[in-house]
Amino acid sequence: MNLLLLLPEDLVGPGVARLRGRRSAHVREVHRAEAGDTLKVGLLGGGIGTARVILAEGATVELELGELDQPPPAKLPLTLVLALPRPKVLNRVLASAASLGVARIVLVNAWRVEKAYWKSPRLGEDNLRLQRVLGLEQAVDTVLPELVLARLFRPFVERELPALAAGTRCLVAHPGAATPCPRGILEPVTLAIGPEGGWIEPEVESLRQVGFTPVDLGPRILRTETALAALVGRLF
Amino acid sequence: MNLLLLLPEDLVGPGVARLRGRRSAHVREVHRAEAGDTLKVGLLGGGIGTARVILAEGATVELELGELDQPPPAKLPLTLVLALPRPKVLNRVLASAASLGVARIVLVNAWRVEKAYWKSPRLGEDNLRLQRVLGLEQAVDTVLPELVLARLFRPFVERELPALAAGTRCLVAHPGAATPCPRGILEPVTLAIGPEGGWIEPEVESLRQVGFTPVDLGPRILRTETALAALVGRLF
Repeated sequence: MNLLLLLPEDLVGPGVARLRGRRSAHVREVHRAEAGDTLKVGLLGGGIGTARVILAEGATVELELGELDQPPPAKLPLTLVLALPRPKVLNRVLASAASLGVARIVLVNAWRVEKAYWKSPRLGEDNLRLQRVLGLEQAVDTVLPELVLARLFRPFVERELPALAAGTRCLVAHPGAATPCPRGILEPVTLAIGPEGGWIEPEVESLRQVGFTPVDLGPRILRTETALAALVGRLF
Repeated sequence: MNLLLLLPEDLVGPGVARLRGRRSAHVREVHRAEAGDTLKVGLLGGGIGTARVILAEGATVELELGELDQPPPAKLPLTLVLALPRPKVLNRVLASAASLGVARIVLVNAWRVEKAYWKSPRLGEDNLRLQRVLGLEQAVDTVLPELVLARLFRPFVERELPALAAGTRCLVAHPGAATPCPRGILEPVTLAIGPEGGWIEPEVESLRQVGFTPVDLGPRILRTETALAALVGRLF
């Protein structure tokens, strides 16, 4: 945790935040914060600055906020269209994408996504927010990447994706594609990454129909979060 | 596991391998392999091809190897000099680096590396090999990245690093450095990545003395394995 990120529900009065649970425990046990100490904090969706600990007792920490006037780092102009990963992988990928500065994440169905993944409790609102918050805490950012769930592949690709991807360079990662993935590009990107085992051909064709170019990432099969970070490093 | 990687000790006769334990369980439970099935296999340090299951009973799988005549993918011309991570992080980073095709990994001490990390059982030979093997299985590669442990920073940097890094572009990741990290370079690279909290200035100065250029990676603080993948994507 490189930034203590305050959520709207933490604010209990003008300029005062009260923490319990995970972040309170972290502040108490890792930062070993006592009343009077100063911590680096950010406000979800807002600025970054410092806060003074005014109470640290048991499971509760209260903070008096200073000026939170430093802006968070800019987001990457990247929409990630990601085939829903296995629940175990989902958490890591959400946190990693948020830390990298991805602006928007669409979790989409695909042929090789097991139906059970859509029933995972990890798709609950609270977990989806928590994982992105963990990525922001790591990267010292305050702005949640937007998150969209698309439970049906074709209706999403045909009806919603063209508007989401308008004005961006549209790439679909597809091993064996003739075009290597471009590098160091300056325009906004929409990047589609398939499930373990990859997209099936009709899915690639659907994406191609709405303007996506299949690109190859080399001979190595990487874990989703490794591939995502390598792609972000390569593209921007 | 995208490749079943056979180790020298698996070979029990000419062209015959016997598996027990983790890989045997994977072949039985995930591949659901039965006698007569064909699997994609590679030989550690050797080629890639197929093998036929000749016995699958209980915890044992026996394989008859075909021609293993496909070469593994080329390594990246990259030596990674990595401050020893927390034990929990070490496993992920080793597997991730191996999957990305890093040719050589040096785990080095640094001021902000806790001494206890060097006593972790994860630094045992078996675990260090296993984690790299897991990365190779993921990426469909057979060649272990070379691994060097350097328990003393200055003697390593002054006496050993110059020879290891000879003829390569030498970069040290250092937030706030004046030079941004280069991209898409064609020469071999030696890349030094610090611990959580970063290198201290005297360490950066020691590296600078032997030819390393400090480079900045942008405002976001990334987890080690995320930073590594993003750097690899950016550099190569």
